[in-house]
Amino acid sequence: MKKKINKNITELFAKKEIEVRFSEVDSMAIVWHGSYVKYFEDGREAFGKKYGLGYMDVYANNYMTPLVKMNLDYKNALTYGDSAIIKTTFIDSPAAKIIFQYEIRRKSDNLLIAEGDTTQVFMNLDKELELSSPQFFIDWKNKNLKNPL
Amino acid sequence: MKKKINKNITELFAKKEIEVRFSEVDSMAIVWHGSYVKYFEDGREAFGKKYGLGYMDVYANNYMTPLVKMNLDYKNALTYGDSAIIKTTFIDSPAAKIIFQYEIRRKSDNLLIAEGDTTQVFMNLDKELELSSPQFFIDWKNKNLKNPL
Amino acid sequence: MKKKINKNITELFAKKEIEVRFSEVDSMAIVWHGSYVKYFEDGREAFGKKYGLGYMDVYANNYMTPLVKMNLDYKNALTYGDSAIIKTTFIDSPAAKIIFQYEIRRKSDNLLIAEGDTTQVFMNLDKELELSSPQFFIDWKNKNLKNPL
Amino acid sequence: MKKKINKNITELFAKKEIEVRFSEVDSMAIVWHGSYVKYFEDGREAFGKKYGLGYMDVYANNYMTPLVKMNLDYKNALTYGDSAIIKTTFIDSPAAKIIFQYEIRRKSDNLLIAEGDTTQVFMNLDKELELSSPQFFIDWKNKNLKNPL
Repeated sequence: MKKKINKNITELFAKKEIEVRFSEVDSMAIVWHGSYVKYFEDGREAFGKKYGLGYMDVYANNYMTPLVKMNLDYKNALTYGDSAIIKTTFIDSPAAKIIFQYEIRRKSDNLLIAEGDTTQVFMNLDKELELSSPQFFIDWKNKNLKNPL
Repeated sequence: MKKKINKNITELFAKKEIEVRFSEVDSMAIVWHGSYVKYFEDGREAFGKKYGLGYMDVYANNYMTPLVKMNLDYKNALTYGDSAIIKTTFIDSPAAKIIFQYEIRRKSDNLLIAEGDTTQVFMNLDKELELSSPQFFIDWKNKNLKNPL
Repeated sequence: MKKKINKNITELFAKKEIEVRFSEVDSMAIVWHGSYVKYFEDGREAFGKKYGLGYMDVYANNYMTPLVKMNLDYKNALTYGDSAIIKTTFIDSPAAKIIFQYEIRRKSDNLLIAEGDTTQVFMNLDKELELSSPQFFIDWKNKNLKNPL
Repeated sequence: MKKKINKNITELFAKKEIEVRFSEVDSMAIVWHGSYVKYFEDGREAFGKKYGLGYMDVYANNYMTPLVKMNLDYKNALTYGDSAIIKTTFIDSPAAKIIFQYEIRRKSDNLLIAEGDTTQVFMNLDKELELSSPQFFIDWKNKNLKNPL
């Protein structure tokens, strides 16, 4: 018996270029590990803008999507003067969650700098957790994915 | 003719001790200039807590107090491992404004590190500017200052 | 056959109290998820101070300890006005790594807010990775743990 | 007798577009006042890149240029979803200082959001203040300004 694999897993992604800011570099002269949280956010916002799944799109549907999980793996360091490309990929899931995977590469030589993922849930404006996917998100998946989970 | 001077000018102040965080230090191995904005905020919150003029006290009276002005003078640098004392002083004014003056000194030797001030105005919850001081602020001044302006 | 378990796993920890800063709260009126990276840092620094394993202790031994991994799980939200306790626990490992586990609880009612862990490696001042534990770290473990791995 | 006026005062400037990040917005749903320090930095770096006066250019000449003064005036608020243009203008001065003036306008309607300025001094790599302008900065001024002060 074959395991069901979602062929859509790498279908939707957005790329965003960033330049390292002086304030993002720490006293070891490398980008401070916490700055990557903002890079992930930059990537997520670029995705949201490209595919209509940004904070404001979600809010227009009376939902908020707070993060419940974030994992970061640091492979190499960025330094001041570097540019990088953040690739943010939507990971489909049957759960009422928005999952993104991130890959940050140095622009000059494509070196892998960091990877990670975030998981967001849906909360209504009374801050109650939604256990099943809101209709707008189901509609979004049907529109953007071939065989949504 | 004598200039009217408010004798209350240094009456109300709060002191707050902070330790430099690793993430606040830049690649020159000194505290990044932008970190002082948070130190001022720490000082302002300590004042608000001590005298009942914090963001939540203000909000409970249906006002917000956004900053309209901030000045910072950097005299010396803090480095990682340093502790500092932030002294936040209320500057009375006849205007519908909350003005604070800040002085940050290194704890070990009292060296002056930075000075500055912030000015906040009153906005109601519809985000309209209040041109005269809200009653709760007048009451607060009458309670806390000898001869409020 | 029994699995070898390190009895030291919860032996060493430090607690640090923090107050939520206004600037750490986002437009959903809860602490922004990225602010927890600083809370973990606060916890880690408190541990370093208590047990002599801070950035400056490490640097005095000619090493730096950049993060290579960070995981965060958000269980509940903190809001402005909350205080919280960060508990940072040293997780022993035979690898040349410093691993900490974090638990953040709301002070008022002990509610679990967030959990996570970080992994740091040793780099010499030429930014070369150390594959085996530096002597000063072995000494530190022998001094502080009963049966170090 | 006429006052000597530097005709170069608005000659050199750089423009940089930024988008408001979710993490830069506070619980009043407007950009947190401290975020403007990063916008100024973005503007300053864009200027440095355009005219060869960035942190790395300065460092290549064995100097650092820490800020000694920063003033910010907040005129209107930016909110999430806004884009803005930061205009950074070099203000010539006979002193051994780098002075920039900043103007931030909302992109959609050119509304003035914030103004301010920063002053930087020259320090050698031993962190000693330079009382007169380093030769590389005099050269830079001669190259870029018609009648440098």
